Amino acid sequence: MQIVTGTGELVRLGRKTAKGVAGYDLAGLMVGSEGTLGVITEITVKLRPLQDPQRTVAGYFDSIVDAGRAVSAVAAAGLTPSALELVDRQCLIAVDAWKKMGLSVEANVVLLGRIDTAGVIGDQEAEKMLSCFDEAGATWSAVSTDQEEADALFAARRLAYPAMERLGPVLTEDVCVPKRAVPEMLARIEQIGIAHETTIANIAHAGDGNLHPLLITPRDDEPARARAQAAFADIIDAALELGGTVTGEHGVGLLKMEGLAQELDPVVLDMHRSVKNALDPHGILNPGKVFS
Amino acid sequence: MQIVTGTGELVRLGRKTAKGVAGYDLAGLMVGSEGTLGVITEITVKLRPLQDPQRTVAGYFDSIVDAGRAVSAVAAAGLTPSALELVDRQCLIAVDAWKKMGLSVEANVVLLGRIDTAGVIGDQEAEKMLSCFDEAGATWSAVSTDQEEADALFAARRLAYPAMERLGPVLTEDVCVPKRAVPEMLARIEQIGIAHETTIANIAHAGDGNLHPLLITPRDDEPARARAQAAFADIIDAALELGGTVTGEHGVGLLKMEGLAQELDPVVLDMHRSVKNALDPHGILNPGKVFS
Repeated sequence: MQIVTGTGELVRLGRKTAKGVAGYDLAGLMVGSEGTLGVITEITVKLRPLQDPQRTVAGYFDSIVDAGRAVSAVAAAGLTPSALELVDRQCLIAVDAWKKMGLSVEANVVLLGRIDTAGVIGDQEAEKMLSCFDEAGATWSAVSTDQEEADALFAARRLAYPAMERLGPVLTEDVCVPKRAVPEMLARIEQIGIAHETTIANIAHAGDGNLHPLLITPRDDEPARARAQAAFADIIDAALELGGTVTGEHGVGLLKMEGLAQELDPVVLDMHRSVKNALDPHGILNPGKVFS
Repeated sequence: MQIVTGTGELVRLGRKTAKGVAGYDLAGLMVGSEGTLGVITEITVKLRPLQDPQRTVAGYFDSIVDAGRAVSAVAAAGLTPSALELVDRQCLIAVDAWKKMGLSVEANVVLLGRIDTAGVIGDQEAEKMLSCFDEAGATWSAVSTDQEEADALFAARRLAYPAMERLGPVLTEDVCVPKRAVPEMLARIEQIGIAHETTIANIAHAGDGNLHPLLITPRDDEPARARAQAAFADIIDAALELGGTVTGEHGVGLLKMEGLAQELDPVVLDMHRSVKNALDPHGILNPGKVFS
């Protein structure tokens, strides 16, 4: 990794070897620091061997909590799928309205899992995931090795966000909870939506416990916007209560500054400030973001 | 992770979720910081599912450079063995002198690989590793699924270090080079031993490019000790020249302080000092270690 430091120097961090413990992991410190500790100008990443074509496991569920229970069951079974994605009713309807895929007629909630393990063991893992889906109450489920079929299913997942955006401004959450807390968190999101009269759609990297509730606000409706903001805050509270984090992958930026201050111990936040001041003594690197 | 900070506070770092980007990765910064940024008092780690019994691939080689070429070939073939260990002639003789395992009669250098992939694919990977060994000039090679046989072979690897220590004081290196540079690095270590009239035995986590040349010095022989020190410095120079690091896993401590200063850009070393001062303002955490 090449970075420009807070004092204007150009340096390289990281290593070319499989292992290495010479000094602090400053490259790791830079990752996710959102430009507050240095400006990353070049990154070289390690490639991993290409995987064989995957097995896709699809499941339809009546309720989002059932789908959440399937996710927890997959984790509890010791499976480590390469993807386990959730798309809820609101998203399916929005995708159908746009692309006429017809999914919302068949399913309320769709779970899409992917197994990368090759050979017979991969088959066994896919069957095991199917059982997890069925035991959690799937109304339909199937394993597919057909790449086209799999791509069509994952297209619905990819289209969900732009489909929702067509309906109005979207406030995107990015909470992440421990895997066993996924059903409980999904239930709470549903309750929060009802309590604040806010439409909340859900897409999720469910297998990671990383949920993206999408809070929909009609254009130019200030009271609705205020209710969505209140729901947003409640979702953060719920995630933290369940041992989760305010941001699984999107970062803090401006939107989650308050959430970060809620999540981190004040002493830990002070450690952040110390590190920030140490590497950015002039306060010129993405100032005012992440924490004040 | 629970740590005591440089200002005497008890805090928790890290997260309970599969993903998370709330703030800097301070838990990662603590790992490998050798007590210079905080005192770690508790760690909770993630467990991964237990693997099925492994396949062991053993190979005997006439020269250490042949064995090194086998290691590079394994990496180039895209294999990611769970272990790929090297034991050289000096170590085999020392183990035999102690435990009468008889390995040094059969082999000059032993390579031991382990494949964790289950099923037929695991068999294929083991066969692929065997081919890499053979093409690099193995004088004997075999795949074993017999756990007892595998344990006996790995016992020789585990006994190598204590067996060498019986022969006199051991100066242990811990360089790590890119995988493709393993044969070249092993050749240079041989030459350095000859140039400085120092006995150098080799054990290695060869699959990671992490080599542990063991420099043997007869007791109470000051000139021999000085020659070993010079060889130690030359090995570090060679590793850095090949794009490697002075320490793959043991850390810097006192022994590698000079090597660290050689390896890191002075600006990067200053960044280390800034971070150190930020988190240890009173300079009380493992003072005088890693860097001055």
